[in-house]
Amino acid sequence: MLAVTILGNNSAIPAFGRHPTSQIITTADELMMFDCGEGTQIQILNYRIRRSRINHIFISHLHGDHYFGLVGLLNSFALLGRIQPLHVYGPADLIKIIEMQFDFADTTFPFEFTFHPITKAGLLHDGKHYTVECFPTQHRIECWGFIVREKKKLRKIIAEKTKQYNIPSTSFSKLQQGEDYVSPEGTLIKNEFVTTENTKAKSYAFCADTKYDEALIDIIKDIDLIYHETTYTAPFAEKAAERFHSTSKQAATIALKSNVKKLIIGHFSAKFEQLDIFEEEAREIFPETDIATEGVTYLI
Amino acid sequence: MLAVTILGNNSAIPAFGRHPTSQIITTADELMMFDCGEGTQIQILNYRIRRSRINHIFISHLHGDHYFGLVGLLNSFALLGRIQPLHVYGPADLIKIIEMQFDFADTTFPFEFTFHPITKAGLLHDGKHYTVECFPTQHRIECWGFIVREKKKLRKIIAEKTKQYNIPSTSFSKLQQGEDYVSPEGTLIKNEFVTTENTKAKSYAFCADTKYDEALIDIIKDIDLIYHETTYTAPFAEKAAERFHSTSKQAATIALKSNVKKLIIGHFSAKFEQLDIFEEEAREIFPETDIATEGVTYLI
Repeated sequence: MLAVTILGNNSAIPAFGRHPTSQIITTADELMMFDCGEGTQIQILNYRIRRSRINHIFISHLHGDHYFGLVGLLNSFALLGRIQPLHVYGPADLIKIIEMQFDFADTTFPFEFTFHPITKAGLLHDGKHYTVECFPTQHRIECWGFIVREKKKLRKIIAEKTKQYNIPSTSFSKLQQGEDYVSPEGTLIKNEFVTTENTKAKSYAFCADTKYDEALIDIIKDIDLIYHETTYTAPFAEKAAERFHSTSKQAATIALKSNVKKLIIGHFSAKFEQLDIFEEEAREIFPETDIATEGVTYLI
Repeated sequence: MLAVTILGNNSAIPAFGRHPTSQIITTADELMMFDCGEGTQIQILNYRIRRSRINHIFISHLHGDHYFGLVGLLNSFALLGRIQPLHVYGPADLIKIIEMQFDFADTTFPFEFTFHPITKAGLLHDGKHYTVECFPTQHRIECWGFIVREKKKLRKIIAEKTKQYNIPSTSFSKLQQGEDYVSPEGTLIKNEFVTTENTKAKSYAFCADTKYDEALIDIIKDIDLIYHETTYTAPFAEKAAERFHSTSKQAATIALKSNVKKLIIGHFSAKFEQLDIFEEEAREIFPETDIATEGVTYLI
């Protein structure tokens, strides 16, 4: 199970009912959050996200539209009497802001809170069913993208075959991990005779804020779903580059060259009321593109 | 002209579509803001407030539900290319938060920004048509209430009378200020023969977060409209006191004893979905009580 729910798809200035960046990642056993712009805790209520299941929050960078909702959310967790641990990952300076705001409010965390400063690309979190890695993006200030990968899934037992070969259920977990079976009499039963492959482990990449950057291509190669920002439409390529942002066509080009299965686009500038043009421009290059629509969950 | 528009009437945890504290004060020549909880800039859009006319923002205290929207609003002002000066007033530590967040985002103010730390009760701002004073309230951390007073209005000239007494228009501004007129021949014309009183100068008090505190009575005496928090209904008086908050009946008692004309109540706890009970309880003591409803403008 891997799915992405969009809570905000707008860039810095709120406009046309759109909100700053935040996404909820649903995995088999818990929820994660990628970025937490102002008002995210209200969007969580609007879309009935079970906030108590959010255990890991990842912040890409310290522009306000990506984290101004974080301390409010933590504060609400504190007031609601949360007890399970919470992990926040982000640029090292983020903890100074959190601590200063809690300090001035004379508030403390009633739950175990761990801040993980991001200092280099690589593995950030090794969960039971998935991992989260980070990679740098090219933005005006330090900025990180994130990749969630489901762990390789166990092979499926074919019940009638294990019965046929008299394999005891105590050996099933080894079979699920791909091992062959050797009977007490010394007979080898090849794994592929008694199991089948499970569904493929899925992956999602959140490319944060970035200018057009071909270094991303290798990093996100073959991923199932990627989110790539498109602050501007194609005619504004120069402005996009100046501001370390991307256009619709640039996002689509990255998706195409990375051989990903599907692209969702967001972080739209407040100058655009209608968003169809973003989708149209991107689909000319990469047809499997959708607008990252607030409230919509993209199953992977 | 003095009016109050409610942008948020809820306490710390957003609930039931209600938002954290923020109010817009409309005066004859500009807008002010009292508190700026998370999401205030979105409420400003929802209620079509002309954000460019907001020149003075007053923050009562450093609990997040009263200021977490401020840096986002300042940031949007910066991105929108605001040029006119902006003044922010609040507890001294607030500037550290603002500066840290702008610093990490590598952003600067393109407009003249002045922070006024509040250190003692008294006059904060002397505008052309009104003044703003602050007073301390009894809360868990340093907290300030605010009073806006329209300046005394000029007396109205009675045109036919000035004609009758041959008073030249060059003397009108002195008449408006209440002075008598002396003709070139030395005849004294008493001011009240040729002018009438203007409408009374209006006043509004925002009592911020506070526990029941009779020290407020003298401070807000005879004011036209007051906002007083009512985090809890009457049966929760003990919890209210513990948390330095007030109940419906306590707010109404303060209004009654202060001889104010009208009371609006807000800062409702997220435990209450229905708000009628707050109004009912308060009106038993002070009938001129209304719920401070989001989006509603209270003309004074």
